[in-house]
Amino acid sequence: MHRRSRSGPVAKERRFAVIMAGGVGSRFWPWSRRKRPKQLLALAGRRSMLAETVARLRGMVAPRNILIVTNRSLVGEIARELPALPRASILGEPTGRNTAPCIGWATLEILHRRDDAVIAVLPADHVIGPRERFQSDLLTGFDVADRAGQLVTFGIRPTEPATGYGYIRAGALLGGHGEARRVGGFVEKPTLAVAKRYVDSGSYFWNSGMFVWRADVLWKEFGEHLPALARALKSMAGSRTPGSRGRVPRERLDRAYPRLESISIDYGVLERSRNVAMLPANFSWSDIGSWDATAALWPVDADGNASRDPLLAVDSRGNVVATHGKPVALLGVSDLVVVDAGDALLVCPRARCQDVRRIVSRLGEPGWRQLS
Amino acid sequence: MHRRSRSGPVAKERRFAVIMAGGVGSRFWPWSRRKRPKQLLALAGRRSMLAETVARLRGMVAPRNILIVTNRSLVGEIARELPALPRASILGEPTGRNTAPCIGWATLEILHRRDDAVIAVLPADHVIGPRERFQSDLLTGFDVADRAGQLVTFGIRPTEPATGYGYIRAGALLGGHGEARRVGGFVEKPTLAVAKRYVDSGSYFWNSGMFVWRADVLWKEFGEHLPALARALKSMAGSRTPGSRGRVPRERLDRAYPRLESISIDYGVLERSRNVAMLPANFSWSDIGSWDATAALWPVDADGNASRDPLLAVDSRGNVVATHGKPVALLGVSDLVVVDAGDALLVCPRARCQDVRRIVSRLGEPGWRQLS
Repeated sequence: MHRRSRSGPVAKERRFAVIMAGGVGSRFWPWSRRKRPKQLLALAGRRSMLAETVARLRGMVAPRNILIVTNRSLVGEIARELPALPRASILGEPTGRNTAPCIGWATLEILHRRDDAVIAVLPADHVIGPRERFQSDLLTGFDVADRAGQLVTFGIRPTEPATGYGYIRAGALLGGHGEARRVGGFVEKPTLAVAKRYVDSGSYFWNSGMFVWRADVLWKEFGEHLPALARALKSMAGSRTPGSRGRVPRERLDRAYPRLESISIDYGVLERSRNVAMLPANFSWSDIGSWDATAALWPVDADGNASRDPLLAVDSRGNVVATHGKPVALLGVSDLVVVDAGDALLVCPRARCQDVRRIVSRLGEPGWRQLS
Repeated sequence: MHRRSRSGPVAKERRFAVIMAGGVGSRFWPWSRRKRPKQLLALAGRRSMLAETVARLRGMVAPRNILIVTNRSLVGEIARELPALPRASILGEPTGRNTAPCIGWATLEILHRRDDAVIAVLPADHVIGPRERFQSDLLTGFDVADRAGQLVTFGIRPTEPATGYGYIRAGALLGGHGEARRVGGFVEKPTLAVAKRYVDSGSYFWNSGMFVWRADVLWKEFGEHLPALARALKSMAGSRTPGSRGRVPRERLDRAYPRLESISIDYGVLERSRNVAMLPANFSWSDIGSWDATAALWPVDADGNASRDPLLAVDSRGNVVATHGKPVALLGVSDLVVVDAGDALLVCPRARCQDVRRIVSRLGEPGWRQLS
C-alpha cells in the first residue's frame, strides 16, 4: 500500500495515462489502412497523432506510467513509433470490445503497480493544443479526480452546433474545485435543431472522451455498474504481485477477451454513476473525423485551399489537398478533397468525406485488397 | 537523275515520310514537360505517339526514308525513342519557325538523296487507326501526288461541328484519281454556327495537316510562293552531292535558321497554290488536343469514366483519369480530369482542359520550375 497524500497536487509518480489507440479510421483512406489507422497518421504536425498524444504528456506523466491500448495487430508498429515506451506498456487486444473492457484492463494493470494511481484516459487521435494549456487543465483534472473522488470528464465549449459529437449537460459547481461542475446528463449526437439550442443555452459541452479518475474509484464504479465485466477482467488479468510488470499470458487473453462484454465506458459506467464531474477545457480540441476536418489544421491560401503540400490553384476555392509533399495543380475546382497516398489516389467533394467508408468497404474486390 | 516511272504505283524506295515532331503540347501537363512534349507521351497505346506514328508506316516507308523534324533539345530523347532510325534522319531545329521552314528543309534533305522522291508529311501527335486503312489511303496519296503532280491533303469527314479545326472545302473530282478532289478553299477555325453549316453541307472536311507531294513539285511551289524562304533554305542546306547524308553544319544552322520566315505551310504554300487536291480519309483521326479528348481513346466504364488505370468509382460519372497505373478512387465527382505524373498531380474539370496552359504559364514560379 502506498501512502496517500490528498492535500497537495497529485505527485508525478502517481499520475498515469491510458491512451486508447484501437481505432480503425477508415474515413482517412487512402492514407489510413488496416495496419496504419488514423492514430498512426501525421494529420497534424510531423509525427503521428499517437506520438503527438504521448509528446503532449511530456513532463506531466512519466513514460513508464503511460499505457497504450490497441489492437494486437498494431502493437509492433506502435512499439516502433514509441521507442521510449516499455514494450509491456502496449496492451494488445485480440479483438476490439469497445472502451469499457480496454479501460478496465488497463486500470487493473495500473493497480498492479500502484493502488493510489490517478489515471488520465486519452484517445490517441484527437488534435489538441496548445500543450501548456492542455497540461494545465490535465493537472487540474488529476487534482479534482484525486481530492473529490469523482470521475472527471473534459467538456469542450462548443463553437458550432455539431451533430457528430455527444453533449454533456453541465450541472452545479462541484464546490471547492474551481470550474469543475457536476454532470447533469449525457446526450447522444443530437439533431441540428437540438444542437443549436444546446449551443445557445451555454450549459452544454461536447463530450471529448477524455477522462481523469483515481484507479480505485474507477474500479469501485466498475464493480458497481459492470460487475460481470469486472469479475471477468479480474480473472483474466490475474492476481499478480503488486509492482509486477508481467503480461497476461496470450492464451488466457485469447480465451477471455472475446467473451468480455462489448460496451463503452460512457454507457457502461459514466451514464450510470452519480460521481461524475466535468471540467470545461481551456485547450482547443478537435476529433478530426474526416478529411474535411483537416482543413482546420493546415495552412490555407487566400482562396481557402488547405494544404501542407506545394499547391498551384487557379480559379479554385475551398479544396483540401494531402499528398505527402507532391506538388498539386488545381484548375477550376472547388470544395474537393484530393489525397495521394503514394500507391493510391482519392478525389471526392468535402461534403462526401463521410462516405469514404463506401470506398473502403469495396477494397475487398480483386486488385484493391492490398490497399485496404 | 533517277529514272521516273509514273505509270504504276510509287515504288517503295521513292516513298519518304517527314514526321513533324516539334510541338510543345503544354495542354498535357503534368505528363508533358518542355523535354517531354505530347508526341513523346503514350496517350494511345503503349508507345509514344511519335513511335506509334513511325510504326504506322511499317512496310510503307523504309526506316531510312523517314525523317523527323523536331526542336534540337529533343533530338537525343527522340533518338533513344527510335533506335531503328539513323541519327542523321532526326533534324533538330535551333528554334521553331512554324511548318514551312521545317518542311522546306526536310524536302531539301530528301532531294539530296532522290530527286524523284514522293513525301508524306505527318504530324507526330495524331491518333490514327486502323493501320491497314491508313496505309491504304497513304498509298493512294502517294499515287495521286506522283501522277497528278498535286499537293495532296487528307480531309477528315467531320463527325461533329468542331470549332477547334480548320476546314477544307471540297471542289470537283480531280478526275482519273478516284475520290481525290480539287480543293475549293481552306477555312480557319469557324464559329459553332458556321461549323454546323459546314457539317450539314457534306462538302467540308477537317484539315488533318497531313500531306503527300512529290519533292520536286513542292520545291517548285516553294520557289513560286515563298521565294525568299526557298533561297534562304537552299543556302542553309547547301549544295551537297546527291546521295549525301552529311548534315548541315551546326554553326550554319544556328546562323540561318532563326532568320527564316516563320510561316505555316498551309498559309505560305497550300492556300496560295492552284495545285492542291484533297483525299477524303477512310481512317479514323483525332488530333487529341487536350486531356478531355483522351476519353475517346481509353476504356470507359458503365458510368462513362475513362481510364487505363485501376479505377474504383462510386457515384462518379464522365471522369478522365490518367495515373500511370496508380489505383484511383473517385467518390461523388463528375466530369473531372485527374492526372498523376508521379511528381505532380492535376485536377480540373474536363471543360477547363484548354486552360491547363494557365497552369503551365505559372511553372516559372519558385518551387515549380522543375515541373515545367
